[in-house]
Amino acid sequence: MDHSTALLTDRYELTMLQGALTAGTAERRAIFEVFARHLPNGRRYGVVAGTGRFLAALESFRFGGPELEYLTSQGIVDEPAAAWLESYRFSGNIWGYAEGDCYFPGSPILVVEGSFAEAVILETLALSILNHDCAIASAASRMVRAAADRPLIEMGSRRTHEMAGVAAARAAYLAGFRTTSNLEAGRAYGVPTAGTSAHAFTLLHDSERHAFQAQLDALGASTTLLVDTYDVARAVAVAVELAGPELGAVRIDSGDLGEMAREVREQLDALGAPKTKIIVTGDLDEYSIAALAASPVDGYGVGTSLVTGSGAPTASLVYKLVARAQTDDGPLRPVAKHSVGKPSRGGRKWAVRHRDENGRALAEVVSTSEPTPGPYDRPLLRPLVVGGEIVGREPLSEARDRHQRALAELPPSAFQLSRGDAALPTEFLNGS
Amino acid sequence: MDHSTALLTDRYELTMLQGALTAGTAERRAIFEVFARHLPNGRRYGVVAGTGRFLAALESFRFGGPELEYLTSQGIVDEPAAAWLESYRFSGNIWGYAEGDCYFPGSPILVVEGSFAEAVILETLALSILNHDCAIASAASRMVRAAADRPLIEMGSRRTHEMAGVAAARAAYLAGFRTTSNLEAGRAYGVPTAGTSAHAFTLLHDSERHAFQAQLDALGASTTLLVDTYDVARAVAVAVELAGPELGAVRIDSGDLGEMAREVREQLDALGAPKTKIIVTGDLDEYSIAALAASPVDGYGVGTSLVTGSGAPTASLVYKLVARAQTDDGPLRPVAKHSVGKPSRGGRKWAVRHRDENGRALAEVVSTSEPTPGPYDRPLLRPLVVGGEIVGREPLSEARDRHQRALAELPPSAFQLSRGDAALPTEFLNGS
Repeated sequence: MDHSTALLTDRYELTMLQGALTAGTAERRAIFEVFARHLPNGRRYGVVAGTGRFLAALESFRFGGPELEYLTSQGIVDEPAAAWLESYRFSGNIWGYAEGDCYFPGSPILVVEGSFAEAVILETLALSILNHDCAIASAASRMVRAAADRPLIEMGSRRTHEMAGVAAARAAYLAGFRTTSNLEAGRAYGVPTAGTSAHAFTLLHDSERHAFQAQLDALGASTTLLVDTYDVARAVAVAVELAGPELGAVRIDSGDLGEMAREVREQLDALGAPKTKIIVTGDLDEYSIAALAASPVDGYGVGTSLVTGSGAPTASLVYKLVARAQTDDGPLRPVAKHSVGKPSRGGRKWAVRHRDENGRALAEVVSTSEPTPGPYDRPLLRPLVVGGEIVGREPLSEARDRHQRALAELPPSAFQLSRGDAALPTEFLNGS
Repeated sequence: MDHSTALLTDRYELTMLQGALTAGTAERRAIFEVFARHLPNGRRYGVVAGTGRFLAALESFRFGGPELEYLTSQGIVDEPAAAWLESYRFSGNIWGYAEGDCYFPGSPILVVEGSFAEAVILETLALSILNHDCAIASAASRMVRAAADRPLIEMGSRRTHEMAGVAAARAAYLAGFRTTSNLEAGRAYGVPTAGTSAHAFTLLHDSERHAFQAQLDALGASTTLLVDTYDVARAVAVAVELAGPELGAVRIDSGDLGEMAREVREQLDALGAPKTKIIVTGDLDEYSIAALAASPVDGYGVGTSLVTGSGAPTASLVYKLVARAQTDDGPLRPVAKHSVGKPSRGGRKWAVRHRDENGRALAEVVSTSEPTPGPYDRPLLRPLVVGGEIVGREPLSEARDRHQRALAELPPSAFQLSRGDAALPTEFLNGS
């Protein structure tokens, strides 16, 4: 994003800035943390995603002429606040869980240290990106597990905001999806793209036979033909007749997908096309994917349920002040509100994944002093920004690989699709 | 958006384009329509939103150097298709329901007429924008009704993708929300913004008293003080002590909001601040807003449930080919697939809202020939693009006003919060 991201911000962040500048408290050292009080929807684990996008957005978080003109002309900030914003560059430190790692209730997935003023105005940007991307990746990861070794195609762009679709494709790939239909995700993030044709292509032509021939002429026999526009059995017969046994795949988008897959598999085998694959699509989620495990399906296309987080469209992450100094260079002191039903733990957090000698995760250990990790424990926070400089960039492929390693540590209960408790208990250690 | 929107597109649209160019069918005249097979979640009506954003995105739908370089280097399109895309300008016609109008199952809220090639590649762009914005506006409209005359503040940006938050603020305003916290929505769409402070601001200061004084110094007595960081009754007492009876409002973000509002109202009145308002926030949706109708609440802030469509994060709109010519300039003929469980009606549609002499809506009439509206009927499709030229731009305020007029036509059953049938039956007339 080369546009400024500075106004992707809630107004109250700038009025708080102005209030703190007025009161002389803006430069107090502060720590904010991003965490989830609970996992949504009875999930067993969450997946960290969006960190890379956040770092890119942070780089573009600049109040230039157009932004300041809007803010001052609307009376949203006064002159001193506008002057402060004009020279704004985040100069603090940020640590975070690595993208692709798993998280649990209370995991401090992002820790932001800076002056109150420079950290408070990042709340909405950080939360928007992480809440969306973690929600999608967490749903995607379950779908990938449910599909076992069969590939998943992300195709939900049409069912979500046009830019959210791009981020969703990135998050799904990170969590193990094989490809996406979204071309911008291909260009911006290098996610492999896939896609062949819709019912409209068949309906455009004078017959299904004409349509199949047109597609084969343009894309070759390895393409995927959509066979449920009229009559599936007839379409499969025509498809193999025209493409021969080298036909790449057929796609079924309606009906009882398991039953259809069985019938089509038998038909393809009988027609001498045993290598032609069967792709199914149509309102799939992790449950319907799992239900098709015994059906002769070779790949799944997932749309709506992926981009809407399969019932949990937001990760419910919050951004909370947990410590601050009482003078500009005084020591950090823990703070926490006492609001009913929203427990907060004051103090800066560290986190390790406590593991046994076989590398099996036993607990998420969150502490308010720097821990001494046990011999098999894995520290979870890594530096992302040091003194304002972004140091945490990495290729998306690293996050994708990391996710598979993070899953391999988890106990089997993590992979139950049913609702339940988090797969790891979070242990809070108060070291102070 | 001044960036190209051309890659906010599913790959299969471009492979279909290539297939049609190869087969010589790309220039066949075609009609695609956007409609919902059903309303989500037992809703009584849907709200059209996003049309204005779609028209802006259409204007930026251009395949320039970076887009073509990506597509050809990845082998996604061949040279003839790339050349076709390079000169792409939509040259057809688009009609649509006006933004802010209501829709029902089968309502053709967007009708795109052009060559197959120029229309098929708009599928994802149109659906992404309309599916998101209609979902948000449809949820927002119910919240506005539930709040009766009390104002609603949209504050959900942090719980959705950073750009979806901007669009959500726009859609909520269109549906009757008073303000948004999202500054970019203020700048880009002129939505009024609101916002004062978070718990972090109180926690930053040495005491709640210091924090309140800082906020009052910066923003004046008309501000809204957040009173639930520690003890609500004590905070309210300090707030009125410092601000006097001119204190604008207090905000409560936790606990039993109805009970808290009653206690705080009594306290404010006893302290001589009867004009100080009470704003409540904290995971509100249309149901909890309605449940607070008898409580002394003056305004609601709504976040998560607004930006996630209150259980229906997508409007489930589809983009279907309904008619096409069999030669480049032949007559349009209806087409429809026969897929199981996904009924489609072929042929270009017109729509009127059938009304009685009092202007009360009786039915949504969708026909496959141009209708002769009755004396009280209201035609629903208006030209948005004529011969490639965008003619349907309008200020957001017009859509906002229109929505209130559209609601005023609906029968009382439209405003039941419970799940049920659409408030109007959709009557399909086959005029051919």
